[in-house]
Amino acid sequence: MNKGNKYGTHRVLEPKGTLPQPAQKLDNNMSIFDNEVLIDVQTLNIDSASFTQIKGACGADKVKMEEMILSIVAERGKMQNPVTGSGGMLIGTVKAVGPNFPNQDLKVGDKIATLVSLSLTPLNIKKVTNINLSNDQVDVDAQAILFASGLYAVLPTDLPEKLALAALDVAGAPAQVDRLVKEGNTVCIIGGGGKSGVLCCYQAMQKVGAKGKVIVVEYSKENAQRIKDLGLATDVLVGDATDVMDVYARVTEITGEEGCDVVINNVNVASTEMSSILITKDRGCVYFFSMATSFSKAALGAEGVGKDVDMIVGNGYAIGHADLTLDIIRKSKGIRELFEKLYV
Amino acid sequence: MNKGNKYGTHRVLEPKGTLPQPAQKLDNNMSIFDNEVLIDVQTLNIDSASFTQIKGACGADKVKMEEMILSIVAERGKMQNPVTGSGGMLIGTVKAVGPNFPNQDLKVGDKIATLVSLSLTPLNIKKVTNINLSNDQVDVDAQAILFASGLYAVLPTDLPEKLALAALDVAGAPAQVDRLVKEGNTVCIIGGGGKSGVLCCYQAMQKVGAKGKVIVVEYSKENAQRIKDLGLATDVLVGDATDVMDVYARVTEITGEEGCDVVINNVNVASTEMSSILITKDRGCVYFFSMATSFSKAALGAEGVGKDVDMIVGNGYAIGHADLTLDIIRKSKGIRELFEKLYV
Ligand SMILES: NC(=O)c1ccc[n+]([C@@H]2O[C@H](COP(=O)([O-])OP(=O)(O)OC[C@H]3O[C@@H](n4cnc5c(N)ncnc54)[C@H](OP(=O)(O)O)[C@@H]3O)[C@@H](O)[C@H]2O)c1
Ligand SMILES: NC(=O)c1ccc[n+]([C@@H]2O[C@H](COP(=O)([O-])OP(=O)(O)OC[C@H]3O[C@@H](n4cnc5c(N)ncnc54)[C@H](OP(=O)(O)O)[C@@H]3O)[C@@H](O)[C@H]2O)c1
Repeated sequence: MNKGNKYGTHRVLEPKGTLPQPAQKLDNNMSIFDNEVLIDVQTLNIDSASFTQIKGACGADKVKMEEMILSIVAERGKMQNPVTGSGGMLIGTVKAVGPNFPNQDLKVGDKIATLVSLSLTPLNIKKVTNINLSNDQVDVDAQAILFASGLYAVLPTDLPEKLALAALDVAGAPAQVDRLVKEGNTVCIIGGGGKSGVLCCYQAMQKVGAKGKVIVVEYSKENAQRIKDLGLATDVLVGDATDVMDVYARVTEITGEEGCDVVINNVNVASTEMSSILITKDRGCVYFFSMATSFSKAALGAEGVGKDVDMIVGNGYAIGHADLTLDIIRKSKGIRELFEKLYV
Repeated sequence: MNKGNKYGTHRVLEPKGTLPQPAQKLDNNMSIFDNEVLIDVQTLNIDSASFTQIKGACGADKVKMEEMILSIVAERGKMQNPVTGSGGMLIGTVKAVGPNFPNQDLKVGDKIATLVSLSLTPLNIKKVTNINLSNDQVDVDAQAILFASGLYAVLPTDLPEKLALAALDVAGAPAQVDRLVKEGNTVCIIGGGGKSGVLCCYQAMQKVGAKGKVIVVEYSKENAQRIKDLGLATDVLVGDATDVMDVYARVTEITGEEGCDVVINNVNVASTEMSSILITKDRGCVYFFSMATSFSKAALGAEGVGKDVDMIVGNGYAIGHADLTLDIIRKSKGIRELFEKLYV
């Protein structure tokens, strides 16, 4: 059995010397190296920015979307959207564990979710069996590889699998909210009515306490309404986050000119950097979880308006993020019901 | 006189509702609004990532570069590189101050540097008079507009103008180093031999003190050598920051497996995110000042290798950044001599 590199560099076909995530093409041959895990994949959870792009490009035609997904994987050896650069996650059953995979407690037959992006996971799809247009999930007959450094979670037995998959996909976001938001803060969550948004709202409400504020800006009336119904924010604004001056006017009406301590950006569309920056107070913090964020628009945009704010790139991983996220679902009956309706 | 918006939205031609930085096209008519400043521009300092791209695309042919610069400004009304999205800065003389510009101490005839990016500054070039291939500076006969929210610095009289221009262009970087680096830290500065790199090295050396480490990874042998000569780092590695596993191996040879507390990325080329992330310790921090940073490569790359690191978008502005940066030049004879040689 061949010896593999901890980070999976042995699977990189081009360009040489790089890691699997930035690589153009991975080797998706399914004979495992000594430190890899082979997974029989059941469902892909395509990243929202990627799924939205594919759906748009194919006019929501499932046959075309299937073709597009298959051709991306054929070309790259992984499900990485060439436009957004993003991936998603998967659930499946462990088929083989290499003798040098670090955690030998993982057993053949275990049901797991990968916590590393599909944008770096070698994947081989035999067949797409279903595409769910409303929740970004794609059922497949496929196999995938997890590297020695690859994070995963054994699926909990008290929650439906597809619910866990949906929640774990965005587990990094509420974990960062937990770190960034302090008691008494004013927080704004842009795209707060979506999947990651709902989880962030819950965590923000916990952290700000009775004197804090959690403001949601959400495009979809329906998504905004469910935030109100679930009591997950102190203020809910229905609006378009790309309309900078409108968002600025309406949020500062609530916060005063000073703005917010922390802004969390959870949208799945481009050009919302400036709305996020303008409503943040000086020395406040913007957390960009959205994969549609442009680095240069954020960096130069903040400078352009003379805003001394800390802008954080949404790392998908934070220690303990899976447990924190699944616990939100366990604690909030409302969110569990909502997610069961949407994702199961 | 027409009333202008604080952020310059009145100059946005398309798309409507957005701010000048993300806008496709600005109105670069040089009659000012009530709260604007008109500047007679002397020299543009094109952002390094942008200049490198233009120089590459034109095979370093000055005539072609001039054409490309003029055509970008003709199309966008601002000098924003369509590939990198970035701009740069300018120096010039105040020609007119609108009656409602916030700081009425600014006088016609004052020499200033703008501290907001060219990527949001209405610009009208009559003539390019010189392109300096080695220092990114372009002398022009041109006019530009500063908005009410636009930052600027009156040029100091004790430093040559072009030196101040060069240093102020990257003033955000050493200011953030000052905030992020603590006594005793191990810091790595990638692209540490360049303009912003030198300033970051100086500030990092000040902050880490006798027990800390400042490691430089620099591609150019010459740039690496001057860091050694100036004593601006404890360790200098000549290497290619896009070669992830090489950088990882050589930096961790110095730091041990644990890695660095703070990594500062100052390169002007793409695909160095993973090198930066892999050498950072868990719960450490990566500061991406490089405009060639890809948001998705950073976000998904860190997750992909299970690294719980804070990744910060290099905001070009921080309170006090201009003074801090000019003071470095005043305090370090070596850096002043180097910058005089390169930029004056
Ligand atoms: N950093 C990471 O590691 C990581 C990991 C996973 C996901 N992500 C990213 O996180 C983001 C959110 O993911 P998600 O799964 O929570 O997506 P989601 O459920 O689709 O949520 C996005 C929300 O934003 C709303 N929205 C869309 N356009 C808007 C606009 N112009 N103004 C205000 N709200 C708007 C959407 O409303 P509609 O329903 O009306 O469109 C939706 O409610 C995506 O960009 C995704 O790619 C990042
Ligand atoms: N965030 C902001 O607001 C802001 C503002 C201004 C500038 N910037 C950005 O900051 C970055 C640095 O600007 P600068 O003016 O300091 O540029 P610079 O003087 O050109 O410095 C870049 C340095 O990186 C080195 N380098 C290039 N490729 C490398 C590689 N593969 N491995 C290691 N080192 C490499 C260069 O060496 P060579 O000389 O051999 O190429 C040079 O020494 C640029 O990306 C610029 O766009 C950001």
